[in-house]
Amino acid sequence: METPWEQRYAQRTQRMASSAIRELLKLTQLPDIISFAGGMPAPELFPVEAFRKACDHVLDTDGQFALQYSTTEGYPPLREMIVRHTARYGIDVSIENILITSGSQQALDLLGKIFINPGDRILVEGPTFLGAIQAWNSYGAEYIVVEMDEEGMKIEALEKALRSGPKFIYMMPNFQNPTGKTYSLDRRMQVIKLAAINGVPIIEDDPYGQLRYSGKHITPVWVLDSQSRSNSGEGYEGNVIYLSTFSKIFAPGIRIAWVIAPPNVIGKMVQAKQGVDLHTATFNQMAVHEVSREGFLDRHIGNLRETYQERRDLMLESIEKEFPESIKWTKPDGGLFTWATLDENIDTRDVLNAAVEKKVAFVPGVPFFPDGSGLNTMRLNFSNAQPDKIIEGIKRLGQVLKDQFY
Amino acid sequence: METPWEQRYAQRTQRMASSAIRELLKLTQLPDIISFAGGMPAPELFPVEAFRKACDHVLDTDGQFALQYSTTEGYPPLREMIVRHTARYGIDVSIENILITSGSQQALDLLGKIFINPGDRILVEGPTFLGAIQAWNSYGAEYIVVEMDEEGMKIEALEKALRSGPKFIYMMPNFQNPTGKTYSLDRRMQVIKLAAINGVPIIEDDPYGQLRYSGKHITPVWVLDSQSRSNSGEGYEGNVIYLSTFSKIFAPGIRIAWVIAPPNVIGKMVQAKQGVDLHTATFNQMAVHEVSREGFLDRHIGNLRETYQERRDLMLESIEKEFPESIKWTKPDGGLFTWATLDENIDTRDVLNAAVEKKVAFVPGVPFFPDGSGLNTMRLNFSNAQPDKIIEGIKRLGQVLKDQFY
Repeated sequence: METPWEQRYAQRTQRMASSAIRELLKLTQLPDIISFAGGMPAPELFPVEAFRKACDHVLDTDGQFALQYSTTEGYPPLREMIVRHTARYGIDVSIENILITSGSQQALDLLGKIFINPGDRILVEGPTFLGAIQAWNSYGAEYIVVEMDEEGMKIEALEKALRSGPKFIYMMPNFQNPTGKTYSLDRRMQVIKLAAINGVPIIEDDPYGQLRYSGKHITPVWVLDSQSRSNSGEGYEGNVIYLSTFSKIFAPGIRIAWVIAPPNVIGKMVQAKQGVDLHTATFNQMAVHEVSREGFLDRHIGNLRETYQERRDLMLESIEKEFPESIKWTKPDGGLFTWATLDENIDTRDVLNAAVEKKVAFVPGVPFFPDGSGLNTMRLNFSNAQPDKIIEGIKRLGQVLKDQFY
Repeated sequence: METPWEQRYAQRTQRMASSAIRELLKLTQLPDIISFAGGMPAPELFPVEAFRKACDHVLDTDGQFALQYSTTEGYPPLREMIVRHTARYGIDVSIENILITSGSQQALDLLGKIFINPGDRILVEGPTFLGAIQAWNSYGAEYIVVEMDEEGMKIEALEKALRSGPKFIYMMPNFQNPTGKTYSLDRRMQVIKLAAINGVPIIEDDPYGQLRYSGKHITPVWVLDSQSRSNSGEGYEGNVIYLSTFSKIFAPGIRIAWVIAPPNVIGKMVQAKQGVDLHTATFNQMAVHEVSREGFLDRHIGNLRETYQERRDLMLESIEKEFPESIKWTKPDGGLFTWATLDENIDTRDVLNAAVEKKVAFVPGVPFFPDGSGLNTMRLNFSNAQPDKIIEGIKRLGQVLKDQFY
């Protein structure tokens, strides 16, 4: 029976209709399925015992504070730690530039809330991170999708897209979700220059920056933008907002991430966050601060890199061996994903249906394109499966492709 | 210097301008101030050691799960526990009716997101909970404010207000924040009847329901509504959405609350929550589930009631003794607050300025009235101050009132 509530949904709620993809993905959680569909870290690498000690320490020494309401901005020692951490990568800010959020998903929601008017166009990569679209759809965002090549957004397409007046550019320069692609230094500079010329600011989402397995660190967009401004004598104008998270370098189940932005923007985000969840859990902020001290997290990230590199290598080798020859896929230098492009006439939603029959799963590429393109693409996660599962899963998927689609 | 971001805020961000009240309240955090301004539980009563054991147990037995991503709906054993808990009060639902949120503030935000179109009118109590206004302003809500007497919203005013077509009624029937008032059984029945006649649903916010220090438990609006529908042979149509939280019965620093709603509404809230923060911290849900088991929380609530009752009694006695005679104040049967009404020509913002000079603070009533009334009212919190501070603080406040305003 329909309740009195069901006739009362807001217009924006219409846009939240459960997608066919979501229904498909429920299948990927069936038992016995080898799933490359999620974006989850390897749980066997979580430093559970170190976290248990950190929790004990926080509760033993400062339990009343840890369980009480706290400020919306976040736990000051954690914000100070992020200032120090981020300075190592050349992002030179102070505590007033930092807001702690309940995962980066919340940072995207808050940015949508303070910046997006219904109908505003957001310039995104094609494909782009699904969570950003989910967050911003509810504020009535429209999207301008800029195609990517191996070095990032294509410059000619970007130039054209910028002319149509987007509110901001959203980009994930390192090991992008979903493609695993990384912007070259040159492409970063070009994006920054074009953004500056057109007066369009940039959101740099960097959840995986520290998970690099090959190649050399490339300077963050935030830093390059800041340098380009100092060089031209204008001073730092804060054209870039930077996001990162503990979800991939520590654990996602505690929901702790951060935003780096000009203090005025942080102030607006704080006001928005007061209405949204008051503050991020005090205890979690203190525990992640405690566990990250004295270099523990650096050592832990070393372990993560080692394991994820093995899994990446194994997945890429397996694909090379098992997939039909005409399929193309990315060779990511880090992160959690590779991205395959099939022949143009193949719809990967059909492939997923067939794959689930053979107990293997991935995410079809369509939902990552707000313009509905990418029918023949798929995202494959390599961080969350054990080596034997990677070998077996890619073998099954290759077989499905050869038997039914090639 | 203005950054490129500052010219780009959304229209809704204009409504978030930092209030004069917020600036005033910063003063209340100065050292040496006896503050009755907050709404915080007594930290010395937090069951820190029990929570430490619960955290250890969760991490020892199920650490990988606790630190991983989890479902948006919430941790199933916690939702099942809430089903059992809430059945004791006559709220008969199943796990499909429950969503875990990151504090009740998030529940208010999600309800705003799925229900409120810009310009929609929400029927609220005068005064009402500040957090609801903060959450819903960002969705463009307007408010119809219905004045209260000692038993709840005034019926004649409610009837009139319902005719103007509000989206829903928002009410806090037990020990309301800010007034401490509780709806009588009769008034609850009247509100339910009028809401049904006008086809307007109700949000029942109940953070303090279990913190009753005197008088008898009164049946929740959810239950009365459900009964009235069964009696008339229509079956339960779910006219009421019910909110509650662990913040006041356990601790707010872990940010765990819940919503009870028809499954279709829960489904929409889940979709909205995916865009907002993916899910509430897995670890926190498991830890609060663990600490609540085997009757621990019931015993803890017994301790809370005992301490808070003493503080309430002491504050009411002190006010009786120290305040000028013509001031009126509520005698709450539970919760955290009492509410004082001064002579009509007095602006309590002026009183706060004078009080802070004498090192005592409260919250002026104005921000709790979306229509800007209530200039001569104030909210006083009794849960967060030790007995000697209550005596001394109310003495100082009484002196300020007598010396400068009466």
